[in-house]
Amino acid sequence: MSVKKVKISKKILGENEKYAFENVLFLAERKKLCLNMISSPGSGKTTVLARTITDLRDKLRIGVIEGDIQTDIDARTISRTKAPVVQINTEGACHLTAAQIKAALQELPIGRLDVIFVENVGNLVCPSDFDLGENGKVVVLSVAEGHDKPAKYPAIFAKAKALLINKIDLLEGALVDFDIDRAKHDASRLNKDLQIFPISAKTGKGMHAWYDWLTGAVASL
Amino acid sequence: MSVKKVKISKKILGENEKYAFENVLFLAERKKLCLNMISSPGSGKTTVLARTITDLRDKLRIGVIEGDIQTDIDARTISRTKAPVVQINTEGACHLTAAQIKAALQELPIGRLDVIFVENVGNLVCPSDFDLGENGKVVVLSVAEGHDKPAKYPAIFAKAKALLINKIDLLEGALVDFDIDRAKHDASRLNKDLQIFPISAKTGKGMHAWYDWLTGAVASL
Repeated sequence: MSVKKVKISKKILGENEKYAFENVLFLAERKKLCLNMISSPGSGKTTVLARTITDLRDKLRIGVIEGDIQTDIDARTISRTKAPVVQINTEGACHLTAAQIKAALQELPIGRLDVIFVENVGNLVCPSDFDLGENGKVVVLSVAEGHDKPAKYPAIFAKAKALLINKIDLLEGALVDFDIDRAKHDASRLNKDLQIFPISAKTGKGMHAWYDWLTGAVASL
Repeated sequence: MSVKKVKISKKILGENEKYAFENVLFLAERKKLCLNMISSPGSGKTTVLARTITDLRDKLRIGVIEGDIQTDIDARTISRTKAPVVQINTEGACHLTAAQIKAALQELPIGRLDVIFVENVGNLVCPSDFDLGENGKVVVLSVAEGHDKPAKYPAIFAKAKALLINKIDLLEGALVDFDIDRAKHDASRLNKDLQIFPISAKTGKGMHAWYDWLTGAVASL
């Protein structure tokens, strides 16, 4: 009987879900907010994080888990902010797994942190299928990618708690063709609760609304 | 014995490789060039294709197989050029498969074409692992994505025959931070035979070198 029970449990939860549930418990016991950032390569996730860490230095203690196929380029950028950072190299894999996050959480000084950001591998498709045990997903879309991306890649927009529309500095002078109202409309149609923040992590424009949402999410834990 | 042989053959080739090999034969018998375009979402693959089709209208007859998770937005853009186009919707899958390409090739007026472009799902990671039976892969990188992408996502840069560094119009006025020499250096280190073309599919800058390469590839079949 007990063997059968284990088999059913494995079938229902699966390997990744098992670790994700362990991460949920680990974070809940410690009242830590963990956000899983997902986007295409080059949307500006690392720049968003570095600026957020720096600007909120006196309000929130932020740690980062960096997921990359290769290199520690992003982890080095984050470490210049003095925030604790753990690098995971997936060596070819297109997404992070909950088991990797479980191991990385052990490497962070978790007791001294309020928020843990996971920067996933740059991929607008696969990471959205892998629950890491996070409190929520944050999707980042650069205006250089085009306003049709919520319609064309709906899964992550349907699942995320927040959408950061980044690089809005490129909208000035009509340098890129991006209909922000269209992107907002399509994303909201997929997910009526999605919080949408047009930002420029480069210039700082729009970042305060994002910071208010983030500090509110920590306060409501 | 025959059963064992089939099993070994399946193990070595795999389901996708079997269809890819059929596509190789189909294209070789007809002397058609098939290029598999791979990039992040929003790098400008569709815009590159639409301009290429229009500018080479009198030299090359081009057909397109459009791969998208959802929508026929890109196929409609291509059809405005009057080129024949077939839409594949993967319904969530992160890459195209050789079986899908085999079916799509049957839908194109293949006898009246010189080149078939496959526009893969926007994903810089997964599509590079799936051979479609194409003659070569073309990777597109937008300067808005950053010069670190060849180092961070090496697989496709190592496998591609050509790299289009797109949206170079954004480099004017230093609107985006992109070190083109660094990107070229990192990509060439992964792949010494990689042909690199800095282009703007929006303004047309640099497109002629790409057209020369493309017409040369057709002539050498």
